[in-house]
Amino acid sequence: MARVVVDVMLKPEILDPQGQAVQRALPRLGFEGIADVRQGKRFELEVAGPVDDAALARIHEMAETFLANTVIEDFIVKVESEKAEKAEESK
Amino acid sequence: MARVVVDVMLKPEILDPQGQAVQRALPRLGFEGIADVRQGKRFELEVAGPVDDAALARIHEMAETFLANTVIEDFIVKVESEKAEKAEESK
Repeated sequence: MARVVVDVMLKPEILDPQGQAVQRALPRLGFEGIADVRQGKRFELEVAGPVDDAALARIHEMAETFLANTVIEDFIVKVESEKAEKAEESK
Repeated sequence: MARVVVDVMLKPEILDPQGQAVQRALPRLGFEGIADVRQGKRFELEVAGPVDDAALARIHEMAETFLANTVIEDFIVKVESEKAEKAEESK
């Protein structure tokens, strides 16, 4: 079973109050040096069957019509193998 | 300015009603073949200054104490160059 990740983030020109709230809280908590924070959504889809071009095209359409609001949000579709995911885990 | 990404996902053993709602909606919308969906959060941090081991250790601590609830959530810290981000964009 392959994992496909869809990252949905507000477009750069759209105000992100959630991210701003996080950024403003950081110095109070002792974390300096973070110039900006943007908060978005991450969807991990477990795809049954092969992740070929047709499947990716369908997932792209799904992200565009359902997972993201493309008026205010950008999205990125990434194929992520289980092994790469494990290697990346910092904890 | 370097970008560091913190992905926060519910632990696998924790029920994810948001992800389930998405997964159940997909067949109704004509998207078949997605076995599971998990929804999480993605934080994009713009770091002022070099992203060295000390900075990453601080971001790791920040993620652990503030961005994620480690009782129910796992997190991954990734350094993402601006160029890699652009190459990955599907749209």
